[in-house]
Order: sequence, then C-alpha cells, then structure tokens
Amino acid sequence: MSPLNRIIKIRDSRAFSNLTTIIILLYACVLGFKTLGDVESSYSLLLVFADYFVTIYFVLELAIKMVSEKKFSNFFKSGWNLFDFTIVFITLLPLQGSDFAAIARLMRVFRVLRVFTSRPELKKIIDMLIKAIPSIIDIVILMFIIFYIYAIIGNFYFEALPSGLWSDFLVSMLTLFRVLTFEDWTDVMYEAMEVHPWAWIYFVSFIIIAAFVFFNLFVAVIIGEMQKLQDAELKEELHEDSKKQDILITEMQALRQEIKELKENK
Amino acid sequence: MSPLNRIIKIRDSRAFSNLTTIIILLYACVLGFKTLGDVESSYSLLLVFADYFVTIYFVLELAIKMVSEKKFSNFFKSGWNLFDFTIVFITLLPLQGSDFAAIARLMRVFRVLRVFTSRPELKKIIDMLIKAIPSIIDIVILMFIIFYIYAIIGNFYFEALPSGLWSDFLVSMLTLFRVLTFEDWTDVMYEAMEVHPWAWIYFVSFIIIAAFVFFNLFVAVIIGEMQKLQDAELKEELHEDSKKQDILITEMQALRQEIKELKENK
Amino acid sequence: MSPLNRIIKIRDSRAFSNLTTIIILLYACVLGFKTLGDVESSYSLLLVFADYFVTIYFVLELAIKMVSEKKFSNFFKSGWNLFDFTIVFITLLPLQGSDFAAIARLMRVFRVLRVFTSRPELKKIIDMLIKAIPSIIDIVILMFIIFYIYAIIGNFYFEALPSGLWSDFLVSMLTLFRVLTFEDWTDVMYEAMEVHPWAWIYFVSFIIIAAFVFFNLFVAVIIGEMQKLQDAELKEELHEDSKKQDILITEMQALRQEIKELKENK
Amino acid sequence: MSPLNRIIKIRDSRAFSNLTTIIILLYACVLGFKTLGDVESSYSLLLVFADYFVTIYFVLELAIKMVSEKKFSNFFKSGWNLFDFTIVFITLLPLQGSDFAAIARLMRVFRVLRVFTSRPELKKIIDMLIKAIPSIIDIVILMFIIFYIYAIIGNFYFEALPSGLWSDFLVSMLTLFRVLTFEDWTDVMYEAMEVHPWAWIYFVSFIIIAAFVFFNLFVAVIIGEMQKLQDAELKEELHEDSKKQDILITEMQALRQEIKELKENK
Repeated sequence: MSPLNRIIKIRDSRAFSNLTTIIILLYACVLGFKTLGDVESSYSLLLVFADYFVTIYFVLELAIKMVSEKKFSNFFKSGWNLFDFTIVFITLLPLQGSDFAAIARLMRVFRVLRVFTSRPELKKIIDMLIKAIPSIIDIVILMFIIFYIYAIIGNFYFEALPSGLWSDFLVSMLTLFRVLTFEDWTDVMYEAMEVHPWAWIYFVSFIIIAAFVFFNLFVAVIIGEMQKLQDAELKEELHEDSKKQDILITEMQALRQEIKELKENK
Repeated sequence: MSPLNRIIKIRDSRAFSNLTTIIILLYACVLGFKTLGDVESSYSLLLVFADYFVTIYFVLELAIKMVSEKKFSNFFKSGWNLFDFTIVFITLLPLQGSDFAAIARLMRVFRVLRVFTSRPELKKIIDMLIKAIPSIIDIVILMFIIFYIYAIIGNFYFEALPSGLWSDFLVSMLTLFRVLTFEDWTDVMYEAMEVHPWAWIYFVSFIIIAAFVFFNLFVAVIIGEMQKLQDAELKEELHEDSKKQDILITEMQALRQEIKELKENK
Repeated sequence: MSPLNRIIKIRDSRAFSNLTTIIILLYACVLGFKTLGDVESSYSLLLVFADYFVTIYFVLELAIKMVSEKKFSNFFKSGWNLFDFTIVFITLLPLQGSDFAAIARLMRVFRVLRVFTSRPELKKIIDMLIKAIPSIIDIVILMFIIFYIYAIIGNFYFEALPSGLWSDFLVSMLTLFRVLTFEDWTDVMYEAMEVHPWAWIYFVSFIIIAAFVFFNLFVAVIIGEMQKLQDAELKEELHEDSKKQDILITEMQALRQEIKELKENK
Repeated sequence: MSPLNRIIKIRDSRAFSNLTTIIILLYACVLGFKTLGDVESSYSLLLVFADYFVTIYFVLELAIKMVSEKKFSNFFKSGWNLFDFTIVFITLLPLQGSDFAAIARLMRVFRVLRVFTSRPELKKIIDMLIKAIPSIIDIVILMFIIFYIYAIIGNFYFEALPSGLWSDFLVSMLTLFRVLTFEDWTDVMYEAMEVHPWAWIYFVSFIIIAAFVFFNLFVAVIIGEMQKLQDAELKEELHEDSKKQDILITEMQALRQEIKELKENK
C-alpha cells in the first residue's frame, strides 16, 4: 500500500474521527471547568498544555486531510474543509496580546464547533437543515409580516405605557417575540387593557395566528421534508415495479407478433 | 411579439415579482424605523418620498395586471386581484385630513400585506391554510364547547375571587385562554384553591382536556392534510401501475383469443 | 312515502342537524351573557323563555329519533342516543326548588354538550378519540409511574420546605404537574436548591424524562393512529393491484396449457 | 400436562400479569397515602402487612419465572429478568437498621418500577425508546454543543450580574436550560440588557436555534422512526407484488420459448 493510500485510509477510519471527537469534547470540558472560579490558579498550567496540544492536533489533522487529496485545490472545494481551515487558522493567529486577550479566549470556544466535522452523522444533520431552508424561508417571510403588522399597531397604540415594552418598533418586535413564547404575556396584556380595554383582541389574535399557525406550519414543513426522504425509497420500489410491467408489455407484444406470423405462415 | 404578450411576460416574470417584494420590504423598513423616535424630523422627507413612490408603483403594477388580462372582467375573478385592488384603492383615498391622519398612518401598514400577492409561494401557503379550514372547523367548535362549559363553571364558583379573573363570562373565557397557554396558571389555581380546595381538579382536567387533546388533534389534522398532498403523488404512480396491468390483461385476452382461432383453424 | 319514512328523512336531513346545532349555540350564548351582571333584571324573562323553548325542542327531537326507529329498543343501543336521553331526562327533573337551584343552573350548561350529537362530524372526532384510548393507556401508566416515583422522592426530601409545595403525596403530584407545564418551575427548583444543592438534577431529569419523552410519545402515537387510517386507503389500492396480478398469472397458465395442447395435437 | 408446562402456562397467562400489575399499583397507593400525615399511627400496621405481602409475592413470582425456564442460566439472559431480580434482591437486604431506615424507605419505592415488567405493552414501549437512542444521540451531541457555546459566552459576558445566574459554567448551563423551557426567560434577558444592550440577540438567537430547531429535529426523528415501522408493512406488500411480477416475466419467457419451438417444429 502506498503512503498516500495509507493516509487516506487513516483519514476515513472511524477510529480517527472518534479520536478527534473525544479530544474536542475533553478540551471543551477543560475550557468549561476553567470558569468554575477557585480552580483557576493551579489549573492554568493544564489549560496551557491542553491549548498547545489541541492546536498541534488540529494542525496535524488538517495536514492529513490536505495531503490525502489528489489535487491540493480539491481540499478547498468542500464547504466543511473551509470551515475546518478557518477555525484552525484563527486559532494560530498571535492574539495573545493584552488587547485581544478576551477575544482570544472566546475564539478558543469556537474550536469546539469542529465536532461538527469530526462526526459524519452531525455533518448529515447540518446538511439536512441547510437543505430544508428553501421550504422554510416562505414561512419566515410570513412570520415577519405578521410580526411587522402587529409591531406597528402595538407601537402605535401602546407606545406611552409605563413599562416601555412598546416604546419603539424594535422593542415592540422583541415584546411580540416574548408573547410568542407565552412568557408572562398576560402581564403585558393586562397593562395594555387598563388603557385600551379591547387590547385582549390584539393579544389573543396574535397568539392564535402566530403561535398556533406558525407552530403547525413549521411542524408540517419539517414532517413533509422527512416524508419526501422516506417516500423516495417507496417510490423507487414502485418505479421498479413499473419498469417490470413495461418489460411485460413489450414481451407480450412481441409474443402476439410471433403468433400472428405463425397464423400467416400456415 | 405583440405588446400584450410582452406585458404578460413581464407580469409573469420572476424578476418583476422579486422587484415588487423587495420594494414592499424596503417600504416596510422605512415605516418601521420611522417609529424609532429621534429620527423623525430629518426623516419625514424620505417617508413622504417613499410613500409617493410606493403609491405610484402599486398603481402601475395593478395597471399591468389589468391590461394583461384578455377580458377586463377576468381580473376581478381572482380573489388575490381583488385583495390587491382593495389595498391600492384604500391607499388612494384622500385621508390626509386631520381627522383621519391616525387611521391613514395605520392604513399604510396594510400595504405591506401585498407581499402575499407578490410571491407565488406565499399565495400557495395561504391557499393551503384556507383549504385546511373545513377540517379544522369541527375542532374549533369542540374547543369552544370545552371553553364554554369550563367558563360557566368557573364563573359560577370563582366569581367572588378578589383578582376578578372570573367576574363575568367573557373574562372567564380570557382567563381560560391564559390557562391554555400555561401562563402563570398556578397563580390562578392557588387563589381558587384557598376558597374551594377541590379547584385543582378543575384546572388539571381543563389542561389535560384542552391543552393536550386540543394540541394533538390540531397537529394530527395538519399532518393528515399534508399526507393527503404527499400520498396524492404516490397514488398517481400506483394508478399508472394499475392502468398498465389493465393493458396487460386486455392484451392477454386478445392473445388467448388468437390462439383459440389458431386451434380451430387447424 | 309513508309517515315513518318521512320522519326518518327529517331525522337524517342536514337541515335538521344544522337547526339543532344553531339552537344549542344560541341557547349557549343566552346562558353565557346572563352572567354579564347588569343585564340580569330585564333579561330573566328571555332566559325563562329560552329555557322552555329548548326543553320543548329537545323533547320533540328525541321523540322524532325514538319514533323513527323500527324497534323502540334499538334506540337505546346507540351510546349517543343514551347520552341525549340522559341529558334531556335530567333537564326535565323538577329541580327548581330552593335547595337545588344552584345545581339546576349548572345542569342547564350540560345541555350544550348535546352539540356533540347534533353534528355528525363531532361524533366522528369523539369516536376517534375513544378508539385511540387503548394505545394511549400504556403511556398514561408509564406517566403515572414516573410521576409516582418523583412525587415520593420529592415528598421525602423537600417536605419541610416553607412553600408547602411538597407537604404530602398528592400536593407533590400537583407540584410535579406544574413542573411538567414549565409553570414557574425554576421558583420551585431554586427553593429546593437552597436546602439540597443537588436538587437541579431532580428537576432537570424530570423535565427531560416526563416533558420531552411524554410529549414525543404522545405525538408519535397520535400520528401513528392517523397513519393507519391513511395507509388503509393506500393498502386497498395495492391489494387491488395484487388481485389483478393473480388474474394475469392464472390467464398466463391457461395460455401455456393451450399452447401445450396445440403442440401435442400436431 | 406436566407440572413444568402448567407453570409456564401460569407465567404467560394474561391473568397472572394483570394480578401482578394490580398488586403493584395497590402497593403504590398504600405507600403514597402513607405520606398523608395524620394517618400514620393507626396505619403503620397495614403498611407492615403490605410490605411483607408484596415481598413474599415478588419472591414467589420470581421463583415461578426461574423454575419455568428449561435451563436455569437462561433466566439471566433477559435484561428484564435481571431488572426484576435486582429489585427483589435489594428488597430482601436487611436494611431495617436505624442507619439505613431512610434509604430503605426510598428503596421500597423502586419496587413500583416492576410494573414495567408485569405489563408486556410497557416492555415494548421501553424497548422502542431504547431502539430510538442511536438516532437521537447525534441530536443530543448537537444540543450539547449549542448549550456549551452559549454557556461559555453567557458566563464570559454576564458573570458579574447580581442574580448570579451566570456565576460559573454549570450554573450558566442550568440557566440556558431554563431559557429553553421559556421559563421567565425575559427576566433573565432584561437583567442582562441593562449591562449589555445587545443581549437580546444572544437570547433570541438561542431560543430560535435551540428551542425551535431542537424541538423540530426531535419530533422529526421520532416520526421518522414511527414511519419506518409503518412503511415496513407497506413495503412487504410491495415486495410481494414485485415477486408476482417476476413470476409473470419468467412464465412469459417460457411461453415465448415454446412458441419458438412450435414455429421451428413446423
């Protein structure tokens, strides 16, 4: 086996992807426990070590992936590889200076996102979510319009309320998002009803339209997408049946032709 | 290509519908940011301009749609055209007088609803929702009866509670709607339990019947409707298979007939 | 047409069921608005009239349904007829005495339940719900056990908390039901965590097991039931296809037999 | 019938499993009502009796299950039998001493879990849940990463807030779980917005990503699993159809061969 093939085999092996996943999750735990306050002093050495180790491992892993491509430029054709490369590249930037220390600390967190590329199943889920976007985008526009109309009306009528929940357009949008999650929406309503007794119509209609319709459309679209995947298999089998019937019909016609010839030859 | 055909082509082009969508969404943003308070003074000129521009664009667009119909009366046969026409017509009414200023400002918001007609996908979603109404109406009646019975009982027993949440029938309905969304429903229950210790049965049974059953029936109906659409495709393919089999059976019988003749002719 | 057939035709007519539905809903409105306080005095005459009218109409309707059965005893074989009969019978009891006045007033509300029997679609939904019970009962037992174990543990550890939310077994059950609906569950948790810092494990695990698993199983069962109904149609069509193929195979074998005879006869 | 067969028949009979279920549920009620305070004194005798009775019944039932196996070691091959054995074994430990009294009391509660093994339907539901784990595990990892990133960011920016909801990593996780259930999440957000006005982006994005996406993926996966079970039946029927068509094609080719021979023989 050539060295290149051996590297490709390593790259595609389950053990290698599992190792990467475990290293990332362990590093995530190290980062997470760092914030538990009193462990900081004796702990910073471990963190520094973990940091160096993960940086080196990531560079090595990326090198393996780059080398194993037949053509180097192929590496950058996959969106997932670009994602990996960007995260590793940012990690290598010399941001240890005092000005960027805080940002550098947050940047480290985004390395954990590399779990997405280390497990093929997670790649699939993310790809599926990206594919579902076109069928969700219209529901999002619909939702935006409902929010928009209600925010303008709410801002128009309830602007002067003391809670300040409707003081401008963006704040009204946020308040409506809160009502959508049913979070203390009656407090908002009762305050509005003191000035405008009809305000319950505004809130109840918004909940029925936005929460019930929105929710159901979302679920229906997701299930529709899932069904398409499921039905694809079923359809394939049906398609195969259909092909077999076409063969049958062709055979049948050939048979009839032969019998006609038999009759005429007699 | 005749001028009429050219207009029809413009009307049906994706670019035209996208342009309309973008103009409406931009206008929505202009209207939205208007309420952000301090921008008002230097900003009103932009708003007046946007107002005039959108009014003219809408009239032009409507004119294109009207002219491109072979018979003028066909235009009003589509519900969506009527919807467009009404919104544009209201926009053109001279409501700038002092009395109607507030209403005129709100009316402008409803122009944003024209996004529904500018994107064919949104039309489809709305049409689907309208088609789903007959299968939802019975669940709504069921829901109304559950609310009704519980509102009467709640009003009967809890009328004198100091919070006034059960003071009359309509208020009781509103309180039950609040309980349906799980919004601070325990506050309502604990208050009622101080007077009537059995009140938890009333609230728990309402939540189980209304929230759990209602929710599930809703989801089940929507998924049922979606499935009908999905299965329609599958059924069509099955139907085609069925037709092919009918052809096969007919061919087979013809074949048998010919062989019979062969035998007899001998 | 015989008088009996005419009565059966009336009983089964859409107009008759719609009339009953409208009368019941109107009566429900009259009862509902009665509680709106200040209308009481001038209003009681209308209520008395509505009461008498609905009582007479219900008795007449029941009489039509009874007479139109070929055998009188058949009437009581339908659960829905028994339901109607019980409601009308209770209505006719002389409960106007002072002791029973309150109960009599509540009894009137249950007449509104007769809407279920006046609309065939509502009968279907209720029947479907009753049919779904066997497949839900095991989930209910499962749910009860989860609640039970958590209630005992909660009562054991949190009994002495000042809020009294865990003071005995039944109260603990009610508190857990509240947590299931996410209603201010963090207040309950934070109180418990002051005494037992590990209490978050108790609450988070309960929410994950009860709310997430419970919810998903419920939805899955309901959708499974709906699918069975939908697939029934598809299966029938598949079954028909299968029959046609059996015909084809039989025909084919007969054909082969005849050709064999042809060969042998030669 | 041999004594062994009689025991096997008893073990598999519906009546035996129903009896076990009822005994366990009754025992659960006895344990539950024990906590209702004032009944304790006169009640402890009943509890002691129930305790002894259930212990003896469980041992007997286990003996029946053990004896009815052909080979004794087979008994321990089923995970459910191991589960039963462990619960009964723990029950028999002499934990009545003063030190373990509290633990022993809690241990009694876990006996109620034996309902799972007494009803075959409950075994099936649990088995189905265990089978669904592999397809859920990736969503759980995804969820963990989303929680992780948001917890680190939240802990980084909001650590100093007076409520202490973001004081360390684990507490931030708990706070995010609270936001996921929409429990008073606006209180958390408004507090954060006082220091960091952009905090609404953090909370709204978390709710959209975690609550909406998480929820939908969960439902989609569960429905997908259910569909696989349902479609299995449909596929089988399709498979049968496919086989019949293969038979038809083979028959057809044999027929054609024979006709060819007919022609050649002439």
